[in-house]
Amino acid sequence: MRSDQIRQGRLSGERSGDLEHFLASMEADRWIAEADLLVDMAHLLGLRRQGIIDEAPARALMAALLDLHDHGLPEEAFDEKFEDIHAGKEAYLIDRVGEDFGGRLHMGRSRNDEVATCIRVRLKQELIALVRSLDDLRRTLLDVAAAHTETVMPGFTHLQHAQPTTLAHYLLAYEQAFSRDTARLREAYARVDVSPLGSAAFASTGFPLDRVYTAGLLGFSRPAPNSMDAVAARDFAIEVLAGVAVSMTTASRLCEELVIWSTAFVGFVQLDDAYCSTSSIMPQKKNPDVAEIMRAKAGSAAGSLAAAITIVKGLPMSYNRDLQELTPHLWRGVESARQSIPLLAGMIGTATFRTERMAAEAGRGFSTATELADVLVREYGLPFRTAHRIVGRAVRHGSLDLATVEAAAREAAGISVVELGVTEEKIASVLDPVHAVAVRNIVGGPAPAAVAVQLSEQQDLLARDTAWAEETGAALSSAFEHLILESRRLIA
Amino acid sequence: MRSDQIRQGRLSGERSGDLEHFLASMEADRWIAEADLLVDMAHLLGLRRQGIIDEAPARALMAALLDLHDHGLPEEAFDEKFEDIHAGKEAYLIDRVGEDFGGRLHMGRSRNDEVATCIRVRLKQELIALVRSLDDLRRTLLDVAAAHTETVMPGFTHLQHAQPTTLAHYLLAYEQAFSRDTARLREAYARVDVSPLGSAAFASTGFPLDRVYTAGLLGFSRPAPNSMDAVAARDFAIEVLAGVAVSMTTASRLCEELVIWSTAFVGFVQLDDAYCSTSSIMPQKKNPDVAEIMRAKAGSAAGSLAAAITIVKGLPMSYNRDLQELTPHLWRGVESARQSIPLLAGMIGTATFRTERMAAEAGRGFSTATELADVLVREYGLPFRTAHRIVGRAVRHGSLDLATVEAAAREAAGISVVELGVTEEKIASVLDPVHAVAVRNIVGGPAPAAVAVQLSEQQDLLARDTAWAEETGAALSSAFEHLILESRRLIA
Amino acid sequence: MRSDQIRQGRLSGERSGDLEHFLASMEADRWIAEADLLVDMAHLLGLRRQGIIDEAPARALMAALLDLHDHGLPEEAFDEKFEDIHAGKEAYLIDRVGEDFGGRLHMGRSRNDEVATCIRVRLKQELIALVRSLDDLRRTLLDVAAAHTETVMPGFTHLQHAQPTTLAHYLLAYEQAFSRDTARLREAYARVDVSPLGSAAFASTGFPLDRVYTAGLLGFSRPAPNSMDAVAARDFAIEVLAGVAVSMTTASRLCEELVIWSTAFVGFVQLDDAYCSTSSIMPQKKNPDVAEIMRAKAGSAAGSLAAAITIVKGLPMSYNRDLQELTPHLWRGVESARQSIPLLAGMIGTATFRTERMAAEAGRGFSTATELADVLVREYGLPFRTAHRIVGRAVRHGSLDLATVEAAAREAAGISVVELGVTEEKIASVLDPVHAVAVRNIVGGPAPAAVAVQLSEQQDLLARDTAWAEETGAALSSAFEHLILESRRLIA
Amino acid sequence: MRSDQIRQGRLSGERSGDLEHFLASMEADRWIAEADLLVDMAHLLGLRRQGIIDEAPARALMAALLDLHDHGLPEEAFDEKFEDIHAGKEAYLIDRVGEDFGGRLHMGRSRNDEVATCIRVRLKQELIALVRSLDDLRRTLLDVAAAHTETVMPGFTHLQHAQPTTLAHYLLAYEQAFSRDTARLREAYARVDVSPLGSAAFASTGFPLDRVYTAGLLGFSRPAPNSMDAVAARDFAIEVLAGVAVSMTTASRLCEELVIWSTAFVGFVQLDDAYCSTSSIMPQKKNPDVAEIMRAKAGSAAGSLAAAITIVKGLPMSYNRDLQELTPHLWRGVESARQSIPLLAGMIGTATFRTERMAAEAGRGFSTATELADVLVREYGLPFRTAHRIVGRAVRHGSLDLATVEAAAREAAGISVVELGVTEEKIASVLDPVHAVAVRNIVGGPAPAAVAVQLSEQQDLLARDTAWAEETGAALSSAFEHLILESRRLIA
Repeated sequence: MRSDQIRQGRLSGERSGDLEHFLASMEADRWIAEADLLVDMAHLLGLRRQGIIDEAPARALMAALLDLHDHGLPEEAFDEKFEDIHAGKEAYLIDRVGEDFGGRLHMGRSRNDEVATCIRVRLKQELIALVRSLDDLRRTLLDVAAAHTETVMPGFTHLQHAQPTTLAHYLLAYEQAFSRDTARLREAYARVDVSPLGSAAFASTGFPLDRVYTAGLLGFSRPAPNSMDAVAARDFAIEVLAGVAVSMTTASRLCEELVIWSTAFVGFVQLDDAYCSTSSIMPQKKNPDVAEIMRAKAGSAAGSLAAAITIVKGLPMSYNRDLQELTPHLWRGVESARQSIPLLAGMIGTATFRTERMAAEAGRGFSTATELADVLVREYGLPFRTAHRIVGRAVRHGSLDLATVEAAAREAAGISVVELGVTEEKIASVLDPVHAVAVRNIVGGPAPAAVAVQLSEQQDLLARDTAWAEETGAALSSAFEHLILESRRLIA
Repeated sequence: MRSDQIRQGRLSGERSGDLEHFLASMEADRWIAEADLLVDMAHLLGLRRQGIIDEAPARALMAALLDLHDHGLPEEAFDEKFEDIHAGKEAYLIDRVGEDFGGRLHMGRSRNDEVATCIRVRLKQELIALVRSLDDLRRTLLDVAAAHTETVMPGFTHLQHAQPTTLAHYLLAYEQAFSRDTARLREAYARVDVSPLGSAAFASTGFPLDRVYTAGLLGFSRPAPNSMDAVAARDFAIEVLAGVAVSMTTASRLCEELVIWSTAFVGFVQLDDAYCSTSSIMPQKKNPDVAEIMRAKAGSAAGSLAAAITIVKGLPMSYNRDLQELTPHLWRGVESARQSIPLLAGMIGTATFRTERMAAEAGRGFSTATELADVLVREYGLPFRTAHRIVGRAVRHGSLDLATVEAAAREAAGISVVELGVTEEKIASVLDPVHAVAVRNIVGGPAPAAVAVQLSEQQDLLARDTAWAEETGAALSSAFEHLILESRRLIA
Repeated sequence: MRSDQIRQGRLSGERSGDLEHFLASMEADRWIAEADLLVDMAHLLGLRRQGIIDEAPARALMAALLDLHDHGLPEEAFDEKFEDIHAGKEAYLIDRVGEDFGGRLHMGRSRNDEVATCIRVRLKQELIALVRSLDDLRRTLLDVAAAHTETVMPGFTHLQHAQPTTLAHYLLAYEQAFSRDTARLREAYARVDVSPLGSAAFASTGFPLDRVYTAGLLGFSRPAPNSMDAVAARDFAIEVLAGVAVSMTTASRLCEELVIWSTAFVGFVQLDDAYCSTSSIMPQKKNPDVAEIMRAKAGSAAGSLAAAITIVKGLPMSYNRDLQELTPHLWRGVESARQSIPLLAGMIGTATFRTERMAAEAGRGFSTATELADVLVREYGLPFRTAHRIVGRAVRHGSLDLATVEAAAREAAGISVVELGVTEEKIASVLDPVHAVAVRNIVGGPAPAAVAVQLSEQQDLLARDTAWAEETGAALSSAFEHLILESRRLIA
Repeated sequence: MRSDQIRQGRLSGERSGDLEHFLASMEADRWIAEADLLVDMAHLLGLRRQGIIDEAPARALMAALLDLHDHGLPEEAFDEKFEDIHAGKEAYLIDRVGEDFGGRLHMGRSRNDEVATCIRVRLKQELIALVRSLDDLRRTLLDVAAAHTETVMPGFTHLQHAQPTTLAHYLLAYEQAFSRDTARLREAYARVDVSPLGSAAFASTGFPLDRVYTAGLLGFSRPAPNSMDAVAARDFAIEVLAGVAVSMTTASRLCEELVIWSTAFVGFVQLDDAYCSTSSIMPQKKNPDVAEIMRAKAGSAAGSLAAAITIVKGLPMSYNRDLQELTPHLWRGVESARQSIPLLAGMIGTATFRTERMAAEAGRGFSTATELADVLVREYGLPFRTAHRIVGRAVRHGSLDLATVEAAAREAAGISVVELGVTEEKIASVLDPVHAVAVRNIVGGPAPAAVAVQLSEQQDLLARDTAWAEETGAALSSAFEHLILESRRLIA
């Protein structure tokens, strides 16, 4: 294969391997190599349609491109002497069909619009896949929740036993968050879905390209409306990284639960062995390693986001080479979520929830004390703050039996609850965790009926998100098939 | 005013001032103090409507709340001994109407749902205001662009003169980015717009609250669907901070332009004195300080975003006090954008663009060389890569006159452009920057006709965003007015 | 007081309050206002010593400065119309002693070197105070550790019971980390300890200033060696923020322990009520709020660090106004550590460690299984990996009694441990946590004797760090006293 | 090779490839594979010396290790089914020498202390190499500066022409910053230089290991003093990442200069073609791509730092698997600096500085106005602030000729400079940039004599840093040679 075609006119001298490696984006370019061929085909079909390229070079180039599409790019095209896959591929094409033909593919195009288009083509595919993963995870959460609407367990604030709730209510809190994460990625998709192709270096081109046509061939909704913005903007990448970082942060919280729940202290969950590791020295250990690594990956995603913002901040228009350094952060961020979310679904789906442990802990730590205070208000007419103070004092004395509550009431409020009619039996029934859950039957609450509404609403929302992913993915695949078909038709 | 009502039942002992200060959120609570009164009124109306509170305490409490609403919270309520404004206000109310009445407002409510509701009420107002600021900035950019569709100037890649474009095309690139920033904040609004009120500590409550009613009173679309998620989630805050950070990053890029454009080297713009400072030692200096500080504020916004993610990452359910530390980052981030965007609009709107300097630089640095290469392709049939190499070689030799181009063609491609019919006149006309802009007349390009389309489309989009802000803002104001009205009616 | 003295020559027009607020650094300048007076005095003594200023204006100015030093700066000097305290103070001085005298203080000085000097003066004081706080915390950790060298408790990996250790060994791990945090801040101090004064705007000045003299007056080791670097560099601030962020990260880990240890599940620690809060709705709650907020403050410190790097990144020489936006991050970061570290010391020092709970958990979860495997190796000659596999298999079967171990040995390695001589008694003694700790008596291990060495070494190191803080702090105070004395002598 | 030796006792079932990939650290482990062999040898020598392992298995194992050292690890050892290189290598060894011997290497050792030791061994090598790179860069800066002590150029504040300086003074500002970056990495080295080996899982071990002996074999100053801290701490990694991020931030500032200086507007520097790229579409372009990518890499380093802090924040003791995710950030950060710094040295060393352009710009933009104001003070007795205002007013009027200055003086201060004796000739001489530089001859200033002092001091400092790198590197190499020698002696 020939040497770098782009550099040779303007610049003299050879470069060291270190320099070539520093400048090259080849590793990240593997993410977009396939998309790049599609972009080439679309551009070539556009050039031909507008009569900018003659039939002979168009056919020769398209034949070569289809060959690469069918059989893959040669490893040589990824040699770092070419800086990027665009140059590597162009050198290959010129070598294959000669400069007179091969040198014409780049008419009206720059690597600036080419790479921006490739990134968007690939990123759309990744976003659809990521939404699918999140949909699967949410489905798992909804399924497990549906099976546990009556599984009473303690809820926590400040990691302290707080009030009883159910496993369904707990898991639905996470499903809510993941449904928002999904929405954000869907909305980001709309902003990724414009085609920079035809923007050339940034000022578009004097060649009469039909940008609407090529955008359609590549499955884009429309061409990017301003050619300078089209090559210079990376806010879409920062937005996706933010979406990924938030999703991973949600995942990290659920992983933290799993780590805590699988301790010997808590014992609420037994993770499937596949998601655990043991120790090289301590033979008894079963560690929740997958959950720990996933928790850490939220940190890595946050780092990628921070890097991307720092790189873009303060760059003037239009394209600056700094942007090349941003792209690996994008792929790394997307990949971390793509790997993590399905494993999280698997971890939840295969976990054994130890409901007897949950039940045993549900009433511990005076977790139904709030209900007692509420009943003192609702049924015995005390002001809330007074009831709160009485019950708090009783807890400090270590018990919620009638004698202690009575003493606390006299001490903290100068009144007698016995005189108000409170009995030992009343207290016992109020402190039962199942009772405490049952009465929490308002919108959003843990009572089974309230949870049933949440389940139903979220299943509907999930169905819509699933349909979106299916339809959007299908439309994209169909556009690519049509593009290949048109390409084959050109050389037929 | 009495001491902390909440703490006294359960915990003993006094705390040092350092401890109180460490735990207190009073400084950030000033952002939500007004919203908190609205939340109190809505909750009280709800308690009364459901018959949870009797008429007498309801009237007494509402009278006190309306008094605070009309005359402001006393400074005492912000004393750090109360930890937060919720506790400070409750102590005030109890002091005012007595514990028997005052202690009833908190029935079925926790500070966990209270603070989450307050944050969302205020944040919605901030988002609407921020969208309005962005709308104004975009309007300014569109207006200046409309006046400069024929103002030819150099465009840059790698900060090198690249190709001619127009000031309109340049500014529209930024307007595009700001229109996406606007869209992101609008979409974030929808996720902020749910009411946590009634979620209590996280498990809702046994009191039969009507969460749909109180959500409506506060201008929310609906209650948050899961009470645990309602108090534990802060992804909405991270999302807003990400939206702010991206907007500020866009702003920082435009500020970087202004800093560079106002150097003695470039001289494209003269900023209004109001946006500049001079030096305490160098009497001749006029420095673009506002642009520099704004550029830096993008860094601060990125820091707030990083902090927020780091704080939330790995927190289990439900409420953890860590979340208190996140809120100041939210307000700080929102404030930085609220301050910056209007000043950026002012800076652009009052700037003098030195069009003669722009015109003089438009053709410099061989910035129309691409057009020459394109013409060699379009009109003389050379392959693009060959033409690119010939022109590149001529540039290396220091000129694009016919003799140099001819020599370069012989040297780099073994051909004669003279024999192909290229003339000195042809080259001269091709190298004219005005010509280069005029031929770039495809979708998104800088030619005046192409720019006119961009202007028109973006004006339409801006009109829609402006209408959204107006309607959403009006609906919110009207909800608050109705809430106050209902509150006054209660005590009438 | 007069209006801004600096701006009036060069720039026209008035500025809006919004603009003034945006440009002003007054809030952050309160951190350096006192230092600024010292810097003024030192500069004035220097001007007089070199004969640059005559006696009359020098005396008038110094009298005014001493008056401000003795009675404080008037609030008016902090008015945002002055942008910064340097301008506000100069306006005050001119108002007080007239322009003919007052206008001479700024000879050979710019706000660029002035503010850099002020920041360093104050930061050195903060670093000494921070080292003192860390020293106190370490002293507390060492004291508590010394009392608990025989308090056996479980150690964890992956939050799973792993092997027995002691509370002393556990706390000493944190003390080690805090001792490194201390060292980093001490080393940062050396880089903060150079005086920019005399660098003027960046190019020093034609006035024959004696920078060594003024550096000495202000307690600096020496003048910054290059005047451009002196005003443009903020790597010292980033370094301090990194040191703070790492220290807070260490603190956040210890806080995480305290949060987990104070759950009802674990119950290893009972925090003093002063460091806890209760709930506004759940009267029984006692929450470790101080530990949670401190954990979150590590996130805020990380955010400040990220912001500072992002702000500085890519700024060319020399002073750019962006640097003003960095300073509040520095103070905020330093303040978060200054507040947190003493409270952490207090929290540890007042905590009740529930040693019986620790002892009860020490042997749980097969935490001495490693020791059993080791004994099979050491005393019965098995290869380690075989022993590890046998014990792991026995754990999977749910017990480490002789029968189970024997079955596991046959199953996993085809051997009989009974035949090797292993007895039930042997196993029992090996599985005793106290035994497991006692045999871990190598350098760094938890055995009491090994811990005694650690205690002694760290006490020595702490004594050296404490001495450094005392000596450095004393030298600084003495320099300031001498500076005031010289200043009073000038007007005597 | 056999399957995973560690997992098989405790856990059942197979894992999917996705799971294996998620858990595996093999890619990052290539950084430490070589170090791991050294660690194995040292541990084995230690086991043998203490009589913990018999001669036969020791010899067999050592022979296998030396074979791997001499011929490299087989690719199979990096198979992701092993999770990490430690497990992969152990499986290989057991396969090679049998379980009875092969299973003994891990006595008294865990992967927790093993990996921490490996990271530190490798990181020390990287730090020495990084210091060497920085030394080379500083040498280049000092050399170029030494050649340009009289090359007058404009200095900038706010990117505006400010005052004249020299290229030497400018470059020395950067050298100062890089010398501090070097110092930070040297100091970090001291904290990296302790050996975790022998800490086992975190509680050390009952085997009587001699940790001082193995630390010495591996070239460490001493064993880590607390075994729990030894495996759980990663503050050393965060510190190194902070050091790298600050160094890269310094580099990014210098790169920003090079980008600006090589624009057509400024033209102060011509970068060697090797460090530039051209455009795929614009044949005339010569872009400073290396400087741009390097500038962006500061953003990536900041991201790695943010990720590392976020990952560690809030992790309780001792080892958590999250730490595995941190290590790639460490290597990525170190690598970015290792790649960048030498290229920056090359870029500076090969650049052509266009001194005539610098001279032409030195006096532009009234950059010597400060000197004029100073002379009005020094030689004509005006108060500084008055002189500043007069000159500022003259600049506003567009000139510093005598007539304008006189008019400004009357206007702004009601005085006549002509009457004070100021002449046209005086003004001309004062405004000469060479004069302005010459009079700035105080410590740190740009006058050639002042710069000579800076050069000399920094050359001395550089010599000391260079000697440190040489000596430390040599000591490390010699330790490794001795280790290999002892290892060979064992099997001799």
